[in-house]
Amino acid sequence: MSVDRTLHHFPLDPASRQARLALGEKRLAFDEAVVRYWEQPKDFAALNPSGLTPVLVERSGGEPVTVCEARAILEHLEREYPEHDLLGSEPGDRAEARRLMQWFDRKFDNEVNAYLLHEKLEKRLLKMGAPDLYAMRQGRDALRLHLVYLEKLLLARDWLAGRRLSLADFAGAAHISVLDYFGDIPWRDFPGVKTWYMKVKSRPAFRPLLTDRWPGLAPASHYDDLDF
Amino acid sequence: MSVDRTLHHFPLDPASRQARLALGEKRLAFDEAVVRYWEQPKDFAALNPSGLTPVLVERSGGEPVTVCEARAILEHLEREYPEHDLLGSEPGDRAEARRLMQWFDRKFDNEVNAYLLHEKLEKRLLKMGAPDLYAMRQGRDALRLHLVYLEKLLLARDWLAGRRLSLADFAGAAHISVLDYFGDIPWRDFPGVKTWYMKVKSRPAFRPLLTDRWPGLAPASHYDDLDF
Repeated sequence: MSVDRTLHHFPLDPASRQARLALGEKRLAFDEAVVRYWEQPKDFAALNPSGLTPVLVERSGGEPVTVCEARAILEHLEREYPEHDLLGSEPGDRAEARRLMQWFDRKFDNEVNAYLLHEKLEKRLLKMGAPDLYAMRQGRDALRLHLVYLEKLLLARDWLAGRRLSLADFAGAAHISVLDYFGDIPWRDFPGVKTWYMKVKSRPAFRPLLTDRWPGLAPASHYDDLDF
Repeated sequence: MSVDRTLHHFPLDPASRQARLALGEKRLAFDEAVVRYWEQPKDFAALNPSGLTPVLVERSGGEPVTVCEARAILEHLEREYPEHDLLGSEPGDRAEARRLMQWFDRKFDNEVNAYLLHEKLEKRLLKMGAPDLYAMRQGRDALRLHLVYLEKLLLARDWLAGRRLSLADFAGAAHISVLDYFGDIPWRDFPGVKTWYMKVKSRPAFRPLLTDRWPGLAPASHYDDLDF
């Protein structure tokens, strides 16, 4: 049965990007509804009371299924569409992929995004005034420590969680690509991370993310360059 | 084949409690290793580089499988031990359970625990001095809003995610039980939440949590009372 599918998302939200990448890799067509989440739209709060993106709505005849936020969406897609498996077949592979997904969605988000993205993106959207230079520096210092960790992982691995592309790569690439939009990744110092990111960036599923633009926020010049 | 299973956890950590409840409900025996995570023990960092509890290690003959943090552990248990299913059989049920798990682990954690538990628990463990009264008040105000939301949900539902006990109930009860240890839940104002919590609290899987004590931190007098 054909499925009518809509993803409610914000283009520069790392969680939304993970859902778009997983849908793309699984070749699942979907309509897009862009959510200006910082304006707290009421129709979106009715879909997801937390007000956070992304939300996936699927209809295939009966009642629509509403799946709120990346954690639930990614697990939903793995279970309902097991072709193009993105978690791995062994318990250890799945545990490692989910460990890294959590690493990005919690640790990286708290230590890097809460400073850098808050200052550069959210403050612009919310018209909260100029970025705080001290907070930005704190975010950049934490980012560097995370990149050191990823560089070390990628010395011994083809992909973040091991030998195969997984949702861990999409989690990492989703977070890093938004910071890269703002020109914040010091690529020169992390050649292993750069090689890995070029591989993820050249997947067909990644292409739509490279065309994302937000009014008033121009991306860094190399943002959509596959050979940066 | 018999499985040798160890959970590395901290008794007053809400994420650890979720893993203990799921293991208990599925009647899976496990050894316990208590982690003093704030002392950043090196042997634990070798298991989980983020340094966060809980970590489950399972051995059944070959290489041990190490599963880091609640998100990965709970999904691992659901997949490997599907008897006593805790997510539901329908995609919509699973999405609703995971929405609420994320609600507690991110929103509740950021808005309530980051203030209340930080001031009352972490500052004690880390010897960081007296709690900040303003921060505690901010946490208590946020807690009240969350309880209002739960009370509304439970007006129409037997369990948090719907008609059946699920991991959403364990996520909620894990967070709320730690705050209840410190006497911070205003039970009188939330009769629906109280009835639900009494039901979760009386599950056999919950019993070990009621005997948790930490030196120098006495629980509220009603903490282990099933009929409080």
